[in-house]
Amino acid sequence: MRLAYRMWLDADGRAFGEGPAALLDLVRTEGSLSKAAARLGMSYNKAWRTLHAAEQRLGFPLLDRHIGGEHGGGSRLSDRGEELLMRYQALHADADREMRRLFEEHFSDWP
Amino acid sequence: MRLAYRMWLDADGRAFGEGPAALLDLVRTEGSLSKAAARLGMSYNKAWRTLHAAEQRLGFPLLDRHIGGEHGGGSRLSDRGEELLMRYQALHADADREMRRLFEEHFSDWP
Repeated sequence: MRLAYRMWLDADGRAFGEGPAALLDLVRTEGSLSKAAARLGMSYNKAWRTLHAAEQRLGFPLLDRHIGGEHGGGSRLSDRGEELLMRYQALHADADREMRRLFEEHFSDWP
Repeated sequence: MRLAYRMWLDADGRAFGEGPAALLDLVRTEGSLSKAAARLGMSYNKAWRTLHAAEQRLGFPLLDRHIGGEHGGGSRLSDRGEELLMRYQALHADADREMRRLFEEHFSDWP
Protein backbone atom coordinates (compact mmCIF):
# COMPACT_ATOMS: atom_id res chain seq x y z
CA MET A 1 0.00 0.00 0.00
CA ARG A 2 1.18 3.52 -0.71
CA LEU A 3 -0.14 7.06 -0.44
CA ALA A 4 -1.07 8.81 -3.67
CA TYR A 5 -2.26 12.37 -4.11
CA ARG A 6 -2.98 15.09 -6.63
CA MET A 7 -2.55 18.75 -5.93
CA TRP A 8 -3.58 21.86 -7.82
CA LEU A 9 -3.81 25.58 -7.41
CA ASP A 10 -7.40 26.65 -7.07
CA ALA A 11 -8.77 30.06 -8.04
CA ASP A 12 -12.56 29.77 -8.04
CA GLY A 13 -12.01 26.35 -9.56
CA ARG A 14 -9.10 24.16 -10.61
CA ALA A 15 -6.62 26.65 -12.10
CA PHE A 16 -3.21 24.99 -12.35
CA GLY A 17 -2.20 21.38 -11.75
CA GLU A 18 -0.35 18.44 -13.27
CA GLY A 19 -1.59 18.94 -16.83
CA PRO A 20 -0.62 22.58 -17.36
CA ALA A 21 2.59 22.08 -15.37
CA ALA A 22 3.70 19.16 -17.56
CA LEU A 23 2.92 21.15 -20.71
CA LEU A 24 4.79 24.25 -19.56
CA ASP A 25 7.75 22.17 -18.47
CA LEU A 26 7.96 20.70 -21.98
CA VAL A 27 7.38 24.02 -23.73
CA ARG A 28 10.44 25.20 -21.83
CA THR A 29 12.61 22.47 -23.35
CA GLU A 30 10.88 21.96 -26.70
CA GLY A 31 10.23 25.61 -27.55
CA SER A 32 6.76 24.99 -28.90
CA LEU A 33 3.35 23.94 -27.63
CA SER A 34 2.78 21.51 -30.48
CA LYS A 35 6.00 19.65 -29.68
CA ALA A 36 5.16 19.70 -25.98
CA ALA A 37 1.70 18.25 -26.71
CA ALA A 38 3.20 15.55 -28.93
CA ARG A 39 5.62 14.51 -26.20
CA LEU A 40 2.61 13.95 -23.91
CA GLY A 41 0.64 12.12 -26.59
CA MET A 42 -1.90 14.95 -26.47
CA SER A 43 -3.47 16.72 -29.41
CA TYR A 44 -2.41 20.31 -29.99
CA ASN A 45 -6.03 21.30 -29.58
CA LYS A 46 -6.32 19.64 -26.16
CA ALA A 47 -3.03 21.20 -25.05
CA TRP A 48 -4.16 24.63 -26.18
CA ARG A 49 -7.49 24.30 -24.36
CA THR A 50 -5.73 23.07 -21.20
CA LEU A 51 -3.47 26.11 -21.06
CA HIS A 52 -6.21 28.49 -22.15
CA ALA A 53 -8.48 27.31 -19.32
CA ALA A 54 -5.62 27.76 -16.83
CA GLU A 55 -4.90 31.26 -18.14
CA GLN A 56 -8.58 32.19 -17.80
CA ARG A 57 -8.65 31.09 -14.16
CA LEU A 58 -5.30 32.64 -13.32
CA GLY A 59 -5.96 35.89 -15.13
CA PHE A 60 -2.61 36.12 -16.91
CA PRO A 61 -0.93 34.50 -19.92
CA LEU A 62 1.31 31.49 -19.34
CA LEU A 63 2.93 31.60 -22.77
CA ASP A 64 4.44 34.24 -24.99
CA ARG A 65 3.32 33.07 -28.39
CA HIS A 66 5.49 33.76 -31.42
CA ILE A 67 3.45 33.10 -34.50
CA GLY A 68 5.31 32.93 -37.79
CA GLY A 69 8.76 34.51 -38.00
CA GLU A 70 11.93 33.12 -39.48
CA HIS A 71 11.62 29.64 -37.93
CA GLY A 72 7.86 29.35 -38.00
CA GLY A 73 5.68 29.41 -34.86
CA GLY A 74 7.00 28.76 -31.41
CA SER A 75 6.16 29.41 -27.79
CA ARG A 76 8.03 30.19 -24.67
CA LEU A 77 6.85 30.81 -21.14
CA SER A 78 5.76 34.27 -20.12
CA ASP A 79 7.65 35.72 -17.17
CA ARG A 80 4.74 35.05 -14.84
CA GLY A 81 4.28 31.59 -16.35
CA GLU A 82 7.95 30.83 -15.66
CA GLU A 83 7.65 32.07 -12.10
CA LEU A 84 4.44 30.13 -11.47
CA LEU A 85 5.91 26.91 -12.85
CA MET A 86 9.06 27.27 -10.75
CA ARG A 87 7.07 27.78 -7.58
CA TYR A 88 4.60 25.00 -8.39
CA GLN A 89 7.42 22.54 -9.07
CA ALA A 90 9.27 23.48 -5.88
CA LEU A 91 6.05 23.15 -3.87
CA HIS A 92 5.30 19.81 -5.52
CA ALA A 93 8.74 18.43 -4.70
CA ASP A 94 8.31 19.45 -1.06
CA ALA A 95 4.79 18.00 -0.97
CA ASP A 96 6.06 14.68 -2.36
CA ARG A 97 8.63 14.50 0.40
CA GLU A 98 6.16 15.46 3.16
CA MET A 99 3.50 13.04 1.97
CA ARG A 100 6.01 10.19 1.90
CA ARG A 101 7.15 11.11 5.39
CA LEU A 102 3.59 11.29 6.76
CA PHE A 103 2.60 7.99 5.20
CA GLU A 104 5.67 6.40 6.76
CA GLU A 105 4.80 7.96 10.11
CA HIS A 106 1.22 6.71 10.14
CA PHE A 107 1.41 3.46 8.19
CA SER A 108 4.91 2.01 8.51
CA ASP A 109 3.62 -0.58 11.00
CA TRP A 110 0.35 -1.28 9.14
CA PRO A 111 -0.13 -5.04 9.31
CA MET B 1 -5.45 31.44 -4.88
CA ARG B 2 -5.17 28.41 -2.63
CA LEU B 3 -3.71 24.93 -2.76
CA ALA B 4 -6.15 22.04 -3.08
CA TYR B 5 -5.37 18.34 -3.06
CA ARG B 6 -6.87 14.90 -2.87
CA MET B 7 -5.14 11.95 -1.29
CA TRP B 8 -5.89 8.26 -1.27
CA LEU B 9 -4.34 4.96 -0.31
CA ASP B 10 -3.34 3.02 -3.37
CA ALA B 11 -3.11 -0.76 -3.57
CA ASP B 12 -2.81 -1.63 -7.27
CA GLY B 13 -5.34 1.13 -7.85
CA ARG B 14 -7.30 3.63 -5.76
CA ALA B 15 -8.19 1.67 -2.62
CA PHE B 16 -9.26 4.11 0.08
CA GLY B 17 -9.88 7.85 -0.11
CA GLU B 18 -12.41 10.57 0.72
CA GLY B 19 -15.52 8.60 -0.29
CA PRO B 20 -15.00 5.45 1.78
CA ALA B 21 -13.58 7.52 4.67
CA ALA B 22 -16.64 9.78 4.79
CA LEU B 23 -18.95 6.75 4.69
CA LEU B 24 -17.12 4.90 7.45
CA ASP B 25 -17.01 8.01 9.60
CA LEU B 26 -20.80 8.28 9.33
CA VAL B 27 -21.40 4.56 9.85
CA ARG B 28 -19.55 5.03 13.12
CA THR B 29 -22.01 7.66 14.32
CA GLU B 30 -25.18 6.53 12.52
CA GLY B 31 -24.82 2.81 13.08
CA SER B 32 -25.94 1.87 9.59
CA LEU B 33 -24.71 2.18 6.04
CA SER B 34 -28.08 3.28 4.72
CA LYS B 35 -28.22 6.18 7.18
CA ALA B 36 -24.62 7.07 6.38
CA ALA B 37 -25.39 7.08 2.64
CA ALA B 38 -28.47 9.24 3.21
CA ARG B 39 -26.43 11.78 5.17
CA LEU B 40 -24.14 12.11 2.12
CA GLY B 41 -27.03 12.30 -0.32
CA MET B 42 -25.81 9.04 -1.82
CA SER B 43 -27.92 6.03 -2.74
CA TYR B 44 -27.48 2.93 -0.59
CA ASN B 45 -26.44 1.09 -3.71
CA LYS B 46 -23.68 3.57 -4.52
CA ALA B 47 -22.47 3.51 -0.91
CA TRP B 48 -22.38 -0.27 -0.87
CA ARG B 49 -20.44 -0.37 -4.15
CA THR B 50 -18.00 2.25 -2.89
CA LEU B 51 -17.16 0.25 0.21
CA HIS B 52 -17.20 -3.06 -1.61
CA ALA B 53 -14.66 -1.78 -4.14
CA ALA B 54 -12.44 -0.53 -1.31
CA GLU B 55 -12.69 -3.87 0.49
CA GLN B 56 -11.73 -5.71 -2.70
CA ARG B 57 -8.59 -3.58 -3.12
CA LEU B 58 -7.66 -3.72 0.53
CA GLY B 59 -8.34 -7.42 0.95
CA PHE B 60 -10.27 -7.17 4.22
CA PRO B 61 -13.79 -6.16 5.31
CA LEU B 62 -14.36 -2.59 6.47
CA LEU B 63 -17.75 -3.29 8.05
CA ASP B 64 -19.20 -5.92 10.33
CA ARG B 65 -22.67 -6.29 8.92
CA HIS B 66 -25.53 -7.22 11.21
CA ILE B 67 -28.45 -8.25 9.12
CA GLY B 68 -31.78 -8.57 10.84
CA GLY B 69 -31.83 -8.98 14.61
CA GLU B 70 -33.99 -7.28 17.19
CA HIS B 71 -33.53 -3.76 15.78
CA GLY B 72 -33.31 -4.65 12.11
CA GLY B 73 -30.12 -4.35 10.04
CA GLY B 74 -27.20 -2.25 11.04
CA SER B 75 -23.49 -1.94 10.44
CA ARG B 76 -20.48 -1.08 12.44
CA LEU B 77 -16.84 -0.87 11.50
CA SER B 78 -14.70 -3.98 11.57
CA ASP B 79 -11.64 -3.78 13.81
CA ARG B 80 -9.36 -3.30 10.83
CA GLY B 81 -11.79 -0.83 9.30
CA GLU B 82 -11.73 1.18 12.53
CA GLU B 83 -7.95 1.09 12.64
CA LEU B 84 -7.61 2.08 8.97
CA LEU B 85 -10.05 4.98 9.33
CA MET B 86 -8.25 6.29 12.43
CA ARG B 87 -4.91 6.22 10.70
CA TYR B 88 -6.28 7.72 7.48
CA GLN B 89 -7.95 10.58 9.36
CA ALA B 90 -4.81 11.31 11.40
CA LEU B 91 -2.69 11.26 8.25
CA HIS B 92 -5.19 13.50 6.48
CA ALA B 93 -5.18 16.06 9.29
CA ASP B 94 -1.37 16.17 9.21
CA ALA B 95 -1.39 16.44 5.41
CA ASP B 96 -3.84 19.37 5.56
CA ARG B 97 -1.52 21.17 7.93
CA GLU B 98 1.61 20.44 5.88
CA MET B 99 0.01 21.43 2.59
CA ARG B 100 -1.16 24.73 4.06
CA ARG B 101 2.33 25.36 5.42
CA LEU B 102 4.02 24.55 2.10
CA PHE B 103 1.65 26.73 0.12
CA GLU B 104 2.35 29.58 2.51
CA GLU B 105 6.08 28.97 2.18
CA HIS B 106 6.07 29.03 -1.63
CA PHE B 107 3.22 31.38 -2.47
CA SER B 108 2.72 33.86 0.39
CA ASP B 109 4.45 36.58 -1.67
CA TRP B 110 2.81 35.62 -4.97
CA PRO B 111 1.89 38.90 -6.63
